[in-house]
Amino acid sequence: METIKIAGFGGSLRKESYSRYLLENTSKLMPENSKLEILDISNFPFMNQDKENNYPENVKKFKKQIKEADGLLIVTPEYNYSIPGYLKNVLDVASRPYGDNPFSGKPIAIMSASIGMLGGSRAQYHLRQVCVFLNMIPVNTPEVFVTFAQDKFDENGNLKDEMTKKFAGQLMQNLVNLTVQLKK
Amino acid sequence: METIKIAGFGGSLRKESYSRYLLENTSKLMPENSKLEILDISNFPFMNQDKENNYPENVKKFKKQIKEADGLLIVTPEYNYSIPGYLKNVLDVASRPYGDNPFSGKPIAIMSASIGMLGGSRAQYHLRQVCVFLNMIPVNTPEVFVTFAQDKFDENGNLKDEMTKKFAGQLMQNLVNLTVQLKK
Amino acid sequence: METIKIAGFGGSLRKESYSRYLLENTSKLMPENSKLEILDISNFPFMNQDKENNYPENVKKFKKQIKEADGLLIVTPEYNYSIPGYLKNVLDVASRPYGDNPFSGKPIAIMSASIGMLGGSRAQYHLRQVCVFLNMIPVNTPEVFVTFAQDKFDENGNLKDEMTKKFAGQLMQNLVNLTVQLKK
Amino acid sequence: METIKIAGFGGSLRKESYSRYLLENTSKLMPENSKLEILDISNFPFMNQDKENNYPENVKKFKKQIKEADGLLIVTPEYNYSIPGYLKNVLDVASRPYGDNPFSGKPIAIMSASIGMLGGSRAQYHLRQVCVFLNMIPVNTPEVFVTFAQDKFDENGNLKDEMTKKFAGQLMQNLVNLTVQLKK
Repeated sequence: METIKIAGFGGSLRKESYSRYLLENTSKLMPENSKLEILDISNFPFMNQDKENNYPENVKKFKKQIKEADGLLIVTPEYNYSIPGYLKNVLDVASRPYGDNPFSGKPIAIMSASIGMLGGSRAQYHLRQVCVFLNMIPVNTPEVFVTFAQDKFDENGNLKDEMTKKFAGQLMQNLVNLTVQLKK
Repeated sequence: METIKIAGFGGSLRKESYSRYLLENTSKLMPENSKLEILDISNFPFMNQDKENNYPENVKKFKKQIKEADGLLIVTPEYNYSIPGYLKNVLDVASRPYGDNPFSGKPIAIMSASIGMLGGSRAQYHLRQVCVFLNMIPVNTPEVFVTFAQDKFDENGNLKDEMTKKFAGQLMQNLVNLTVQLKK
Repeated sequence: METIKIAGFGGSLRKESYSRYLLENTSKLMPENSKLEILDISNFPFMNQDKENNYPENVKKFKKQIKEADGLLIVTPEYNYSIPGYLKNVLDVASRPYGDNPFSGKPIAIMSASIGMLGGSRAQYHLRQVCVFLNMIPVNTPEVFVTFAQDKFDENGNLKDEMTKKFAGQLMQNLVNLTVQLKK
Repeated sequence: METIKIAGFGGSLRKESYSRYLLENTSKLMPENSKLEILDISNFPFMNQDKENNYPENVKKFKKQIKEADGLLIVTPEYNYSIPGYLKNVLDVASRPYGDNPFSGKPIAIMSASIGMLGGSRAQYHLRQVCVFLNMIPVNTPEVFVTFAQDKFDENGNLKDEMTKKFAGQLMQNLVNLTVQLKK
């Protein structure tokens, strides 16, 4: 049986980012016959249609990795009740030029982590609307909103909360299941 | 009577941006005793909480201009059914660090322009949700969605559509009225 | 000084509704010189444009009460990640026929209560979008999401959680302040 | 090859409803080996958790029809920038009691029609958020927003606009394709 390849990205740009911790810890929660590869989204240029036919190498590499993936994982922080600008910019840049959208048709899992009580849910619903245009197919359940994230990771960024491990693992299982189903 | 100062920003980074054209043309549609100053949002750094106490001069200048404004205008393109990443990043960067949010309490008008038939409405509703967190007070009517923007401006970027002029002018009148009312 | 009249409605139709408890308890949290009148929304007909010029007496009474109010409070449950159908129907019915929208121009406070961990936030953001069309002016802060509502009320439906009392009281204070400001 | 059964509902309660016209006309646009059955949603009770274990016969019949369908179609009007209350109430009632959600796992197509220029798009995105909770899998493309609906149907409610026929037919084809894929 072929290994299902999931490409993951997200997290904030700060050094101690709970979203990035969550992304990295998810590598250890993947179902059998699947693996999570974490993609580099640093140093993306700002989206500019005048330059979109001439993107730098890191963008080209990112797009190639998305195309080769069977499914996707985005871990989004929430800034100002929506998707962070720099993360939305990754989607804006990588989905262009028109007709070369590597996200199209990919199943996707969405997670978020925040220090507040709503756990990034507002960013997730905005991201789901973005998925409509990019033609991604989001997994519905379980929704993973890591609330009060500062209590769920140890000082080395290791996920220590068992419920979060369980739900994140279940989401990845459901993502892999959907991916297999849509490949048939 | 004191002149009401509106600070406006937005548009896309491309050279021929209908959103920027709309922003620039709105200068000529302002009510008496008000003026629109268009702010520079180029060369913003990406939001990074580790660096937010040490932002560059252009960010400091932008924040000062927002603070000094009586009201705001954002003209947003729509990328992937939401706010463009680079524009959201301007809001993310300028609203930090915590406790130094220059947008708080400001009345705001929102417009959009797009070449498609929905005219940016999806980006506007996401932006309205962002306004809740940033504590801005958006004007409700008229909503200005410039559809099929390629037909509404001439080759020099001048707004030639009379209906758009009327609605954009009415929105700015309503923004100024709300601004005056909230200053009392 | 004139008493500021706030009209409130919402809650679910079940007997033990945390949303209705929250609405009722808010009567005791009103600032000086203001009072909350709770409106009856039972037995509304379904919205039907063919019948909208001939609504029953209870709808006419409700619309009159909304018109006479200085400001509004809606306490919304969350059903299926949005506003409950029966509550949305109240807004649909009472805002018609076209040109006779009693909600227009009213400042409004929104609260929600749920037994889950997100406290109705998804319903609140949908309701805020509805407010754009109905031309209501929602107060931004504090947002009152009563999570794990079963722990916050006693067996008689009395609000016992001090934090919730504080935030709900502050929201009503801000609503009254905005109402006064907009009346000037 | 087995016939794919799509259950459709929606439209407004008025006699001349463009949304209902659109629903009815879609019967003639179905791909080979599929058929659209239009469900009756009149006379639903309001959602009330105290009564949800004792719903009337029409609700039981509706739920049975949804369960037996392979896929779903909802044609939604837009009232006050969201899903109409009476239509949301159908979803609220039929998805209860907890654990007996007939919508779960069903692929779904969404359409809307309106006399305005945005064609119901705001209602569609709210409905997509509802689909997350109800665990439906919405088709992404093409999105069918019938704008200026008064020009697209003849006086007998027959769809006469070729573009709308093409897009609605394509959406139903994509719905049937997804349904087949998810049944494997």
